[in-house]
Amino acid sequence: MNEYKSMIEDKIKEYLQEDLGYGDITSESLISPEQEAGARLYYKEPGIVSGLTESSLVFDLLGCESSILAKEGSKTDAYRTLMEINGSAKAILMGERLALNLVGRMAGIATRTSKVVEKARKGNPKIRIAATRKTAPGLRIFDKRAVIHGGGDPHRFRLDDCVLIKDNHLELLPSISIAVEKTREKVSFTKKIEVEVRSLEGAIEAARAGADIIMFDNMSPVKIIENLAILKEEGLHDGVLFEASGGITIENVSEYAATGVDILSLGSLTHSVESIDVKLEIEMI
Amino acid sequence: MNEYKSMIEDKIKEYLQEDLGYGDITSESLISPEQEAGARLYYKEPGIVSGLTESSLVFDLLGCESSILAKEGSKTDAYRTLMEINGSAKAILMGERLALNLVGRMAGIATRTSKVVEKARKGNPKIRIAATRKTAPGLRIFDKRAVIHGGGDPHRFRLDDCVLIKDNHLELLPSISIAVEKTREKVSFTKKIEVEVRSLEGAIEAARAGADIIMFDNMSPVKIIENLAILKEEGLHDGVLFEASGGITIENVSEYAATGVDILSLGSLTHSVESIDVKLEIEMI
Amino acid sequence: MNEYKSMIEDKIKEYLQEDLGYGDITSESLISPEQEAGARLYYKEPGIVSGLTESSLVFDLLGCESSILAKEGSKTDAYRTLMEINGSAKAILMGERLALNLVGRMAGIATRTSKVVEKARKGNPKIRIAATRKTAPGLRIFDKRAVIHGGGDPHRFRLDDCVLIKDNHLELLPSISIAVEKTREKVSFTKKIEVEVRSLEGAIEAARAGADIIMFDNMSPVKIIENLAILKEEGLHDGVLFEASGGITIENVSEYAATGVDILSLGSLTHSVESIDVKLEIEMI
Amino acid sequence: MNEYKSMIEDKIKEYLQEDLGYGDITSESLISPEQEAGARLYYKEPGIVSGLTESSLVFDLLGCESSILAKEGSKTDAYRTLMEINGSAKAILMGERLALNLVGRMAGIATRTSKVVEKARKGNPKIRIAATRKTAPGLRIFDKRAVIHGGGDPHRFRLDDCVLIKDNHLELLPSISIAVEKTREKVSFTKKIEVEVRSLEGAIEAARAGADIIMFDNMSPVKIIENLAILKEEGLHDGVLFEASGGITIENVSEYAATGVDILSLGSLTHSVESIDVKLEIEMI
Amino acid sequence: MNEYKSMIEDKIKEYLQEDLGYGDITSESLISPEQEAGARLYYKEPGIVSGLTESSLVFDLLGCESSILAKEGSKTDAYRTLMEINGSAKAILMGERLALNLVGRMAGIATRTSKVVEKARKGNPKIRIAATRKTAPGLRIFDKRAVIHGGGDPHRFRLDDCVLIKDNHLELLPSISIAVEKTREKVSFTKKIEVEVRSLEGAIEAARAGADIIMFDNMSPVKIIENLAILKEEGLHDGVLFEASGGITIENVSEYAATGVDILSLGSLTHSVESIDVKLEIEMI
Amino acid sequence: MNEYKSMIEDKIKEYLQEDLGYGDITSESLISPEQEAGARLYYKEPGIVSGLTESSLVFDLLGCESSILAKEGSKTDAYRTLMEINGSAKAILMGERLALNLVGRMAGIATRTSKVVEKARKGNPKIRIAATRKTAPGLRIFDKRAVIHGGGDPHRFRLDDCVLIKDNHLELLPSISIAVEKTREKVSFTKKIEVEVRSLEGAIEAARAGADIIMFDNMSPVKIIENLAILKEEGLHDGVLFEASGGITIENVSEYAATGVDILSLGSLTHSVESIDVKLEIEMI
Repeated sequence: MNEYKSMIEDKIKEYLQEDLGYGDITSESLISPEQEAGARLYYKEPGIVSGLTESSLVFDLLGCESSILAKEGSKTDAYRTLMEINGSAKAILMGERLALNLVGRMAGIATRTSKVVEKARKGNPKIRIAATRKTAPGLRIFDKRAVIHGGGDPHRFRLDDCVLIKDNHLELLPSISIAVEKTREKVSFTKKIEVEVRSLEGAIEAARAGADIIMFDNMSPVKIIENLAILKEEGLHDGVLFEASGGITIENVSEYAATGVDILSLGSLTHSVESIDVKLEIEMI
Repeated sequence: MNEYKSMIEDKIKEYLQEDLGYGDITSESLISPEQEAGARLYYKEPGIVSGLTESSLVFDLLGCESSILAKEGSKTDAYRTLMEINGSAKAILMGERLALNLVGRMAGIATRTSKVVEKARKGNPKIRIAATRKTAPGLRIFDKRAVIHGGGDPHRFRLDDCVLIKDNHLELLPSISIAVEKTREKVSFTKKIEVEVRSLEGAIEAARAGADIIMFDNMSPVKIIENLAILKEEGLHDGVLFEASGGITIENVSEYAATGVDILSLGSLTHSVESIDVKLEIEMI
Repeated sequence: MNEYKSMIEDKIKEYLQEDLGYGDITSESLISPEQEAGARLYYKEPGIVSGLTESSLVFDLLGCESSILAKEGSKTDAYRTLMEINGSAKAILMGERLALNLVGRMAGIATRTSKVVEKARKGNPKIRIAATRKTAPGLRIFDKRAVIHGGGDPHRFRLDDCVLIKDNHLELLPSISIAVEKTREKVSFTKKIEVEVRSLEGAIEAARAGADIIMFDNMSPVKIIENLAILKEEGLHDGVLFEASGGITIENVSEYAATGVDILSLGSLTHSVESIDVKLEIEMI
Repeated sequence: MNEYKSMIEDKIKEYLQEDLGYGDITSESLISPEQEAGARLYYKEPGIVSGLTESSLVFDLLGCESSILAKEGSKTDAYRTLMEINGSAKAILMGERLALNLVGRMAGIATRTSKVVEKARKGNPKIRIAATRKTAPGLRIFDKRAVIHGGGDPHRFRLDDCVLIKDNHLELLPSISIAVEKTREKVSFTKKIEVEVRSLEGAIEAARAGADIIMFDNMSPVKIIENLAILKEEGLHDGVLFEASGGITIENVSEYAATGVDILSLGSLTHSVESIDVKLEIEMI
Repeated sequence: MNEYKSMIEDKIKEYLQEDLGYGDITSESLISPEQEAGARLYYKEPGIVSGLTESSLVFDLLGCESSILAKEGSKTDAYRTLMEINGSAKAILMGERLALNLVGRMAGIATRTSKVVEKARKGNPKIRIAATRKTAPGLRIFDKRAVIHGGGDPHRFRLDDCVLIKDNHLELLPSISIAVEKTREKVSFTKKIEVEVRSLEGAIEAARAGADIIMFDNMSPVKIIENLAILKEEGLHDGVLFEASGGITIENVSEYAATGVDILSLGSLTHSVESIDVKLEIEMI
Repeated sequence: MNEYKSMIEDKIKEYLQEDLGYGDITSESLISPEQEAGARLYYKEPGIVSGLTESSLVFDLLGCESSILAKEGSKTDAYRTLMEINGSAKAILMGERLALNLVGRMAGIATRTSKVVEKARKGNPKIRIAATRKTAPGLRIFDKRAVIHGGGDPHRFRLDDCVLIKDNHLELLPSISIAVEKTREKVSFTKKIEVEVRSLEGAIEAARAGADIIMFDNMSPVKIIENLAILKEEGLHDGVLFEASGGITIENVSEYAATGVDILSLGSLTHSVESIDVKLEIEMI
């Protein structure tokens, strides 16, 4: 088992337990323990491959053999076999639903991310599309991984990944500069400092205070373009990464990308996921 | 702490840990431990109340006081305060994202379920709208609870809740009657037996074998109406519950409801969730 | 590892830890890590085979090889080898006590259940003998599994397996019919509804309300026979399962079985277990 | 919460989860969350009080108030109230079965142990009655505690509590003296060394080697008396504790006690437990 | 309980369990459960206050009341009371050793860090003294926290906190620039990139490639001064943080600090800890 | 996996998780999953071999192959290869730090213990050097094991291993004899009773009361010699083990050993550990 599988093994076991309870009373009554079966997993629509490592672990834990036939992060057509499983028919049936739930969600996230990336790159070929912490509770590692498979940037996994000074913090402090100064003093030098701003003034102050990343929150593309121009004039543009967030959709993402920011972040990549329609076709042997 | 909170406490702790890592480096640097704050949680759109118990537990575990102001399962307007929180500003900020992620998803599920129920009841005021096992891994208890808040039926939580004989099982057995017989013999008498059928013949055989529930899988409303009529003529209708599943959407749900089945089940209630836009408004004190 | 072993692995590890503490100080001092041994497990009295899967997992987890030589649920004579183990002598000695404790209890339950079933079938060859939730805390899965090996029905594993309306519930409600109605409305359609009654009137009301199972609580065989006759006359017998519980012993079980009920349940199957005398004979190699 | 409750809290939570599953579907449908109730717990037969701490924790964890009215380890008559509980009716019903299962088993063990102790003290007022490691898996702490409540000695909790050199070990070593020597050298000086012997010669050798405890395994009372006499003559009696084990029952325990050994150990105290009949009487308020 | 205590609660419980086993057999035999006691905790030598939150939680979990009388991170004299505890005498005795072990180690780390910081600040008043990942397994959160209390910087808690390209990585890549480029492309923009270099050339290449932090590994102070001068000349100094590591001791730390680097990191802060001599003085009441 | 590895597997997994977070972002970006590597582990100074089993498990869990080339507890020179690892380069890099942290600490403890033992044996070739419960929280099993590898005695692992009556206990009791008597009555006969004394009178009373071990606390070598002589005269020396503790250092250990006590215990063996400098040399293949 590789490092990643070893890291998620307990979660997958917990999910299996959640679905099985004291066992699959139907399959156990109907299927002999000796009955062997094979199965193949595929999407019923085109999409980005994701969730295969996770779902193969489901079958491993149930004593089956699985082999992954497509690279996670690559595109796939509908009906192409992405994974094959062999083992006890009962075990395959027990793992089926969980495997499909994992792939369905992750493939849904990866595929949507990929579409957003593709659309955004029309506005700016170097733009990064980032997710947020708006993930399903307990599933952050899977949601973020699927974003990466879709070509996105995971952004913060946790509150300790990077400083992000928001409005709520600023209400308690005399100024952005003091906030930046305070975090620089108290937080490890290994961490970046990001500041969320809603105005040009905020951005200027943050840049002067030495913020590593400045996020324009809920700002129109036009306004962002204006602000970046002024920051450039003021010599405050270089060495800083600019991010836009709030109100970005697949429709306007290309326009936002064209503003010149480095990163666009969208909560919807993970908080409102449309599952890919995935199928496990089982054949008794 | 009541029984439900006690049951989910470990999950909520795990989710907090997932989001916090070694702590909220921003808030800890900027906000004094003595700083107190209040907060109110509301939807930015109308919907069904759900997820308040779970998110109040987030704040309890962080040492805050929370009070729930709306009954889960009831309708709410946008901007109505659903929960109030008081406590350390730092703690409220640490719990914010998780609380919103929980409410956002659960409210999304409950609200969609409620819309489907409402629509379906136009076709048949007694219809039950049921979810499936297509939930996000680890979140079954929350997804199912949200379905209930939306007026739906949770259907099976686990594979041991009720027998459900599917195509994959039937491929391995000579007939539906033998499958039903076998499960009745081997499974506890406390469990119902459901059979998934794709034809009238299957339904007749299942009913004769004494199935408690018969599910029409991927069958058109017209076909279902025909089949139910024949089953009635054959004296095989009473004492059996009929469920339809596969291809049911909010658009056609009323038509399906009007066929005379007792239950309609939809995977999309939980596998493709659109989050409700929820907000936590924090006010420093 | 198959699905069942995978499901119970953490429990078995916990039990090993409970018995080992920081290690077997005697064996570790006396036996070289290279010392190999073989062992065979047998009953010192005839009985029903049970607990072999669980105890083989004990040895697997300690790095030994084990092979099961008898089918769980079958009868065995005294001294017949049921399992063979090979591996490090130290490991076999470390696992010995836990393996015997598991088999001893499960075999005790299975054997007693089997005797009760055999006795009861003299009164009614189709009777089901069911256990209750009176199991040893933490051991429900093993206790119920042993009941099944003995030819019994596990009845409810958990409070969410099936509705069971008891006296304590009825004290709070105007009538049995209202109680049944309420649970049918609130509980998933996938669940059966059982009602515990102490009188003919209760049984009639429960049957009319559509209870799936009616349990005669602490009622004499004579009274049960009378009541079933009247229920039949009233057309309330068919489509309902009847269970008797309370005061049933191996002495009177055949008489109870002959009353015409479908199920007899006995708490004593699991709350007062007499261990089978099991032996692990170790031979150093 | 005191230290003991804190130590067993996770176990009790696990047991609750085992019994509840996703909740008590009956009580949740029928009983309003506001409904309060009181309950009293008593034995329906006389016995030794045990298991109250554990079962009070069940109710604490469900949010009820419980008060223990009898000292664990003391004798109680039938029907005397041993514990009172107040709280949500639903919660009391949810905890009922687990609380009774805990008390039933522990009271059963304590009561039997107490009877054996009483009987044995007729033969020797200073005799110690000890349990073995033949406990129900996972329940060692409770089984041993119940033995203590019954006036018994818990003997080893774990394999690292004390050296116990058995036949299986001796097969691998040239002599008892070498075995004792080896363990004395390798095991911490804080541990006692016990040797199981089947003959006078073994006992003499063990005593000479400096064993702290010598156990006569499966030896008749007559033989034990003889052997002790010879050991005394040889000056090998003082400073050593003598234990007898194997084949000791409540019938012959007094005779064994009269032999002059210090300790008698019986596996049956914990491997074959007869539950005390315990009742929780609930009264809705 | 605040967020931090809530985060470490399970660890402290595990440590208690590790020390208690099945209980404190001495105190339980000798001290009545009703016996109350008070205790005060102090250092027997001057030092930096650390570990009080952790050790107060030990006593909280055992049902005692504790109050912290000194701010963590502040200096204390010998014998000054830092914490007071009140509660059951037995519980205080049970928690004593763990509490002292926690404070002893954390105070040891904090005090040593503080001395190193003080010494280093003589060479450069703005220098940061950082720890490494050379912590005791399982204790990273406590070891790092103690470093912070001593005025140090925790550096990376985990391998995902910040990129750190080392020799082992560079062996596999054609050049530092390509390594930096690759990580910038693949790792989230929220992360800094640090490169360990052993030569001026390496430093120049890393700076040109845009490394955020450059670490001089095992380089003499003289060499570092030279290299920084050249980097400044080349315009590669600003916007980069410089760290020195390897061979830094309390003896030479001031000299290293004077070289002009921003950070000095020392593994010895946490891998070779000298405990502070801490005492819990208990007074029975 | 042998019993010991199986026992510590969860701890090692937890430590890996602690160090990895969501993964090694550096290695994952730079090293292809197919890249294989070999590695060898050695000390950079002479010492006692310890921690190899633990660190080999780190690599096993990451999917590598490891082979141990030196016996734990033996002496090793600097630079001798003690373990070889083969596998994915990424995995080896991920496990490196934890493996070194484990070996560094354990080797440090074992080596220091060995030096103390060697020194002490000059004073008394039969002396036992024992550790205390002053270990790093969570690491007791490893710290004690390292003491054993260094030739030491682990003393108590837990508070339930042996009775140890201390000053704090005696303050609550009328006399040492009563304390010993009480513990003998309440604690299992399988446990030894140790008494800590600060005077000859205490030692005499403890010996008369039948203590198994008497510990001279903070007593000078001269005083101990005097006391042992008097105890011998009084016939209170034989059958009792004598331990000295408090103020024993590597400098005076030989003098203490020569006093005639059986055991010397030193907290510093585990509370103030100096890591051995261990290196993992990786070679890409």
